[in-house]
Amino acid sequence: MFIGKIVGSLVSTQKVDAMKGQKILVIEPFRLTEERTGLKTTGRTLVAVDTVGAGENEYVLVVQGSSARGTPETKTLPVDATIIGIVDSIVVGKQKVNF
Amino acid sequence: MFIGKIVGSLVSTQKVDAMKGQKILVIEPFRLTEERTGLKTTGRTLVAVDTVGAGENEYVLVVQGSSARGTPETKTLPVDATIIGIVDSIVVGKQKVNF
Amino acid sequence: MFIGKIVGSLVSTQKVDAMKGQKILVIEPFRLTEERTGLKTTGRTLVAVDTVGAGENEYVLVVQGSSARGTPETKTLPVDATIIGIVDSIVVGKQKVNF
Amino acid sequence: MFIGKIVGSLVSTQKVDAMKGQKILVIEPFRLTEERTGLKTTGRTLVAVDTVGAGENEYVLVVQGSSARGTPETKTLPVDATIIGIVDSIVVGKQKVNF
Amino acid sequence: MFIGKIVGSLVSTQKVDAMKGQKILVIEPFRLTEERTGLKTTGRTLVAVDTVGAGENEYVLVVQGSSARGTPETKTLPVDATIIGIVDSIVVGKQKVNF
Repeated sequence: MFIGKIVGSLVSTQKVDAMKGQKILVIEPFRLTEERTGLKTTGRTLVAVDTVGAGENEYVLVVQGSSARGTPETKTLPVDATIIGIVDSIVVGKQKVNF
Repeated sequence: MFIGKIVGSLVSTQKVDAMKGQKILVIEPFRLTEERTGLKTTGRTLVAVDTVGAGENEYVLVVQGSSARGTPETKTLPVDATIIGIVDSIVVGKQKVNF
Repeated sequence: MFIGKIVGSLVSTQKVDAMKGQKILVIEPFRLTEERTGLKTTGRTLVAVDTVGAGENEYVLVVQGSSARGTPETKTLPVDATIIGIVDSIVVGKQKVNF
Repeated sequence: MFIGKIVGSLVSTQKVDAMKGQKILVIEPFRLTEERTGLKTTGRTLVAVDTVGAGENEYVLVVQGSSARGTPETKTLPVDATIIGIVDSIVVGKQKVNF
Repeated sequence: MFIGKIVGSLVSTQKVDAMKGQKILVIEPFRLTEERTGLKTTGRTLVAVDTVGAGENEYVLVVQGSSARGTPETKTLPVDATIIGIVDSIVVGKQKVNF
């Protein structure tokens, strides 16, 4: 899994039937800074579906690959990335990471 | 999933039987610019099949891996990338991304 | 899938039984040039099995992941990359790409 | 699989039900130094679940993809990375690697 | 698949039961040089299990992903990379690659 930030959403009218009604979110994967005291973007852009009601600017936990279909909400969807949690905090060496 | 632009198509006469009649498209994955106000190419080139009738120069949503076989049209194909939607718009911070 | 060039072959005497008799090819993934008028190597090297009778210096279509087992010839092989077609031509903006 | 170092942990209150009670760890993949006498971080950040009771600052063996669900503890979880062992030592050319 | 060199081995006492007794090897993926006359390391480090009795400093063929479970020896293991052959030679343009 990776830590991502929801930076936006994507509208697609013409899409496969299974995806109708799905909220499609634009995610940037983040990583720890070199000092491991904060998070920084990787600059990449991915698209994921949401199962936990996450919103823009929230940091989330994203699962990829076949396990993206491993939730009740996504098991029949043609998706390879699913948000499975909202990140409350990250702790490194007993210190909370800033984000 | 990722956001890609259809930049061309690929002709293959000699191919596995299951792929006969499939439209095979050449895709460049795109990502948000650093300001998140536009899209730019990643410079990579991938090949995908289409399930939604997308055409050259359109921005599309592409699923990879085993989920590329997760649509009625692709479930028996040996494919690892499938176009599952045409991107109408991307919204970041209530602003439409330019593309 | 990706576009690759067959640059060589690999000989392995000591290998898993399922791979006996398989032609094992060395592939370089290629991508479009920035002008999208030609192809250039990515510099990476992958190994794939062949299902279509492709030969050295040919450009081929390669599928990866679990779908590499999605052809009649490869369904019982422990492979993660399979050649599923020979590339005749690539067309970008009605122009044939040079390769 | 890859060698990773556990650098922290992640708290997520709002998450898919299957993940309740799971210890979610933040991992940095490491690689051998050029001399192959030590380990150095790749700078990337991944998130994994644990099956072996590993703790912060330990070096661990991490499996990715569908095999991350290949342990008794993870077989029903929507995860794509699982810690399957604690690394005691790495030996290159009869010398122990420093870490 | 990719061509890798076995550079070492990894000892893990505390690991998932299924991995007990498995030989765990440290691999560096290699690629062709630009002239395609030799091999050079990619600098990356991966970990794989062995099914063919390969030893340190040998060049091997490694399969990744779900197909890493596609051999009799690995079908119940939580692994994502398996050595499926020892590389005897690589031929590019009728010339043997040096390694």
